[in-house]
Amino acid sequence: MTAVRPGADAEEFLLRARRLTGPALRDAVRRLPEPTRGIAEYHFSWDHGQAGKSVRAALVLAAAEALHGPPEDAVSGAAGVELVHNFSLIHDDLMDRDPLRRTRPTVWSAYGDSQAILTGDALLVVAMHVLADHPPVLREVCAALLALVDGQSADLAFESRTDVGLDECVRMAALKTGALLASSCAIGGMLARAEPARVEALRRFGHHLGLAFQLVDDILGIWGQTQVSGKPVGADLRRRKKSLPVVAALNAGGSHARRLREIYHPGAGPLDDDDIQSAAELIELAGGRAWAERQAEHHRTGAMAALAAAEPTGEGAEILVALATLVCRRDR
Amino acid sequence: MTAVRPGADAEEFLLRARRLTGPALRDAVRRLPEPTRGIAEYHFSWDHGQAGKSVRAALVLAAAEALHGPPEDAVSGAAGVELVHNFSLIHDDLMDRDPLRRTRPTVWSAYGDSQAILTGDALLVVAMHVLADHPPVLREVCAALLALVDGQSADLAFESRTDVGLDECVRMAALKTGALLASSCAIGGMLARAEPARVEALRRFGHHLGLAFQLVDDILGIWGQTQVSGKPVGADLRRRKKSLPVVAALNAGGSHARRLREIYHPGAGPLDDDDIQSAAELIELAGGRAWAERQAEHHRTGAMAALAAAEPTGEGAEILVALATLVCRRDR
Repeated sequence: MTAVRPGADAEEFLLRARRLTGPALRDAVRRLPEPTRGIAEYHFSWDHGQAGKSVRAALVLAAAEALHGPPEDAVSGAAGVELVHNFSLIHDDLMDRDPLRRTRPTVWSAYGDSQAILTGDALLVVAMHVLADHPPVLREVCAALLALVDGQSADLAFESRTDVGLDECVRMAALKTGALLASSCAIGGMLARAEPARVEALRRFGHHLGLAFQLVDDILGIWGQTQVSGKPVGADLRRRKKSLPVVAALNAGGSHARRLREIYHPGAGPLDDDDIQSAAELIELAGGRAWAERQAEHHRTGAMAALAAAEPTGEGAEILVALATLVCRRDR
Repeated sequence: MTAVRPGADAEEFLLRARRLTGPALRDAVRRLPEPTRGIAEYHFSWDHGQAGKSVRAALVLAAAEALHGPPEDAVSGAAGVELVHNFSLIHDDLMDRDPLRRTRPTVWSAYGDSQAILTGDALLVVAMHVLADHPPVLREVCAALLALVDGQSADLAFESRTDVGLDECVRMAALKTGALLASSCAIGGMLARAEPARVEALRRFGHHLGLAFQLVDDILGIWGQTQVSGKPVGADLRRRKKSLPVVAALNAGGSHARRLREIYHPGAGPLDDDDIQSAAELIELAGGRAWAERQAEHHRTGAMAALAAAEPTGEGAEILVALATLVCRRDR
């Protein structure tokens, strides 16, 4: 694998991935009946320059290219995973009652619960339609979808629990974030007709990437800077979200964990600004931040080892490294 | 086609269809993570003897048999359409806020909105997984699913409208009820590898059957007897549902339609018992009942003509006639 310019190369490839999958995504959405079609177009924000990054599509395309599959063959797979991802965003935003996504009102808050259910359902259906010609890829996506359901179900259950263990919290993140990234990478390999062992290595790469991504995301959500990440820092703490550093700190034992527990449990309403600042300090003092940093590094290293085992070559390999670097970056 | 004993034969075949598809359905549900799996099992009521009739599965199997396909080949198609049907029941019950199904609390009312969303999603995913090996069948099911979304979307929009036309109401019923029955019949033909013209004839058979079913269902919902149909008579009127006979009456013109309009519009709360009785009488006086009876007969005849064009043979043909007769029965 040759040297890369991580930021530039990855951003450039993400743009290329969006250009390659865009027509398939738009065609899929165009198949929807109104008003569902218009709502799906609102969600994708294509006309507002605020569309998602398409990391999953980029991983499918780069993995396929790195294992000698022509990118064109992988476009339907890339479009399929993006549609699945957006289905899950719309339904999860509704269940989590998240009001904003990419700075705009979420589908449920703009169009109501029923339209959010229907639009999510419709995106899932067209995802399956796009993938219909590749039964193994479709089955792979179905397995990832059941993992998403499992992870979201656990996440919802965590909200009302005060005894969430670190293992089950990591499992939840692996299901909710890791599974579809893992499947995206595996699908790239499958569409390139790579040997099963290399497909499995790509899957492990995506799994580690997913956990590294979630850990960094959780760290930035507490100690990041809104102007850099574009995310409102403290929002996770405000709604008492059981993110990975929080759960690590709550389970650390000792006086800091005990004080954090007093702030986080068993209250109902959102935390105020003072509590948010205290919680952030206590999480750090209890070792939650250091644990998350170590784990993020562990999964970054695991991702790179898995990638090497997949024996990627050429520009696709460089791009996979660049995408992994981007995903793990602290200033993204 | 030979003479049949409609009731007995159809009920017997429905039982056979449930026995044939049961293992595939249970396997599919067993694949779900907890708590979703338990909730899906609750919905199916397998252990309570109150499971659905599996009309769609029976149509797939009978259509396949009538076009010389061995029923075993059609089992995955039958299981797939049943899973899709049950996905739509769970999400529609949530959107419509229906509290009961088959005399038990609906999933959303027993487990909450989020679990209803996730359980519906999960059933849709396993439906696709079951159908993954048959791309043309999977695409057919995807088209039916987009019709379901379209129909449900129209149904929701009707709730707040006072100007629903009869054509758009018939279109809604064709989408919401006709499309999946039409696809079920077409899929039976596809899995029997029948020529396209016969598959299309089966699709028309299912479409007409769906409209006949909905018209009879709407008639029974207003003028049926709870002890015969098992449905609470008057419930549709109570919640001001714009069913087909109601919309026909509202659009009939004249004094009865005008008086009906005063009762039905633009109120918000449920109708009381007196209003329900007045509405039922006015719908009949305005010609809504006669129109619905004529239309049901029209679609029953259309279904039989389409079935003849599909040139079914043997026991499968007899069963399709028996199922059609059962679906159109006034005392079901």
